[in-house]
Amino acid sequence: MVLDQLAHPIVQAPLAGGPSTPSLAVAVSEAGALGFLAAGYRSGSEVAGDLAEVRERTAAPFGVNLFVPGRDRPDPAAVRAYLNRLRDEAARYGAEVGEPRGDDDDWTAKLELLLRERPAVASFTFGCPDPEVIAELRRAGVEVWVTVTDPAEADIAKRAGADVLVLQGIEAGGHRATFADRDDGEGLGILALLRLVGAGFEGPLVAAGAITDGAALAAVLCAGAAAAQLGSAFLRAREAGTVEAYRRALEGDASTALTRAFSGRQARGIRNRFLEEHSAFAPSAYPQVHHATSPLRAAARRSGDADGFNLWAGQAYPLARDLPAGEIVTSIGAEARAALAAAARRPRSQPT
Amino acid sequence: MVLDQLAHPIVQAPLAGGPSTPSLAVAVSEAGALGFLAAGYRSGSEVAGDLAEVRERTAAPFGVNLFVPGRDRPDPAAVRAYLNRLRDEAARYGAEVGEPRGDDDDWTAKLELLLRERPAVASFTFGCPDPEVIAELRRAGVEVWVTVTDPAEADIAKRAGADVLVLQGIEAGGHRATFADRDDGEGLGILALLRLVGAGFEGPLVAAGAITDGAALAAVLCAGAAAAQLGSAFLRAREAGTVEAYRRALEGDASTALTRAFSGRQARGIRNRFLEEHSAFAPSAYPQVHHATSPLRAAARRSGDADGFNLWAGQAYPLARDLPAGEIVTSIGAEARAALAAAARRPRSQPT
Repeated sequence: MVLDQLAHPIVQAPLAGGPSTPSLAVAVSEAGALGFLAAGYRSGSEVAGDLAEVRERTAAPFGVNLFVPGRDRPDPAAVRAYLNRLRDEAARYGAEVGEPRGDDDDWTAKLELLLRERPAVASFTFGCPDPEVIAELRRAGVEVWVTVTDPAEADIAKRAGADVLVLQGIEAGGHRATFADRDDGEGLGILALLRLVGAGFEGPLVAAGAITDGAALAAVLCAGAAAAQLGSAFLRAREAGTVEAYRRALEGDASTALTRAFSGRQARGIRNRFLEEHSAFAPSAYPQVHHATSPLRAAARRSGDADGFNLWAGQAYPLARDLPAGEIVTSIGAEARAALAAAARRPRSQPT
Repeated sequence: MVLDQLAHPIVQAPLAGGPSTPSLAVAVSEAGALGFLAAGYRSGSEVAGDLAEVRERTAAPFGVNLFVPGRDRPDPAAVRAYLNRLRDEAARYGAEVGEPRGDDDDWTAKLELLLRERPAVASFTFGCPDPEVIAELRRAGVEVWVTVTDPAEADIAKRAGADVLVLQGIEAGGHRATFADRDDGEGLGILALLRLVGAGFEGPLVAAGAITDGAALAAVLCAGAAAAQLGSAFLRAREAGTVEAYRRALEGDASTALTRAFSGRQARGIRNRFLEEHSAFAPSAYPQVHHATSPLRAAARRSGDADGFNLWAGQAYPLARDLPAGEIVTSIGAEARAALAAAARRPRSQPT
């Protein structure tokens, strides 16, 4: 398994939509953790370019994350109503609302790329690939990781032949990886998820959600994870593509919330004006709403207005550090070892 | 500190409303953890009786938990509308809807009892006592623990002079301990809460939420907790007052949800008919709704119908064991030590 080759039990979360860069993946993998390219929202050829760049700059293993095309059928009337709301947003930023189109995120081209280029790991979000797809990737020497949020999704991924389950707790930033979009304030926390799924899966578990420092990493290792997938911890890394206004928001401590306002799918971000004003009205309609808000978010980013675009972040984002990615890996790895050693030698932890 | 005297870093959550019994507190404390009496919903004189019984049966330290009277002002029209809904429920169980009265849960009598009887620990839920009250208890030799759910509540408890903070994550069963009732699907998971609050408090932290086995206990110890408060883990204990229909529900794996349907305050329980049918209509009105539904819930309990009363449980309740409480303590304590030792010696956790 790829996880066995890592010096640190740390996986960089794929951070689709800007923060993910080849430089970030390279820096993380070179430091002895597992870097990731986020293929989501990008064309097959763009991802091919990213992958070639990472290959050129490191011989270490890395992963590529794909969004699995959904089967949800958005309500056209609900989408139209939300587009009307967005026109004022568009005017504010001198942009036009985007076309609310459906698409499969260039699924076939990306799968072919994976089979051809064979990265160490392919991870999947928003669903589980068909067993035939998983089998084909495995035959090609690609380890298949499937992201799940509850025991039922874990069962599907197990039966489909996944090598590794990435368990995403409700604390995690960015999109909920649920196989179908759903109202999910009731989602399982990462500790509960690890313990409930752990007993029934023989392969390694990777824990995601609110793991932003070494003590939290040590915690999920104790709870049965083979490694942790860290997102917010890398958002402020020098190599990340996180824009300045987003970085400034990450220096604060505003609370986060789940919202469909930006993409039409539940995702966790720092509360800002856009989230507060539109969350109650946003339909379940992914990727239609994503495409509709895309030009608005791009314009807000360009103007440096953190109130106008998605500030994805997990619940523990205030603990993220502004450091080179390699230092983030080594410091969190060292902290985790120290936390484990300290907890193991506490007097109260000894038999009486 | 009381926590330093325990053989196991385990605190029995106060389980108000039935499961808490003097026998449970005695068994837990005798096993080297910290047993608790739940004073909530009981009169001062009833609690005095419980306390005397525990004292008679063990010399080990134990705690008493009080509900802090709230300052929320329920909307009378919303309460009336909900009472109308409840009439069909009442008819179903041959009961009458209770009077939706406000009260202070016999606060003054219970405080006087604590000052007189001086249990090792007094813990508080639903708010933070005034600094003068905390100072008086501490002068009497009673350690003061305050339950909090976010960094802002933790700051209030620290400034008021609390000895210990009990951090309750969103995963926890039973009532959310928020100082005011609020829509709280966005509450912090226990790992995030531990890491966000940990840096700013010098005293011990006790972690609550989805900690039902030793691996989860080891996890929160790594994340900075001095001990964990376990609720669901003790619901099936032989000594608990959990009724049979509730015990059978705990053997399943239905998911949990937050609801105001039973009490007018957010609480996590196993989904059942009452929860599904009424959650969307229940107002924020505690303890008015608690008193209104009380006769209905009592009747459903008597008839053994688990669809008609509150099945409080945390997200990891399926891991709870049907054992004597002392064996629950010693087995979870031993598992936690084993999990810490295993995580500390894993090859991937070593420096490279």
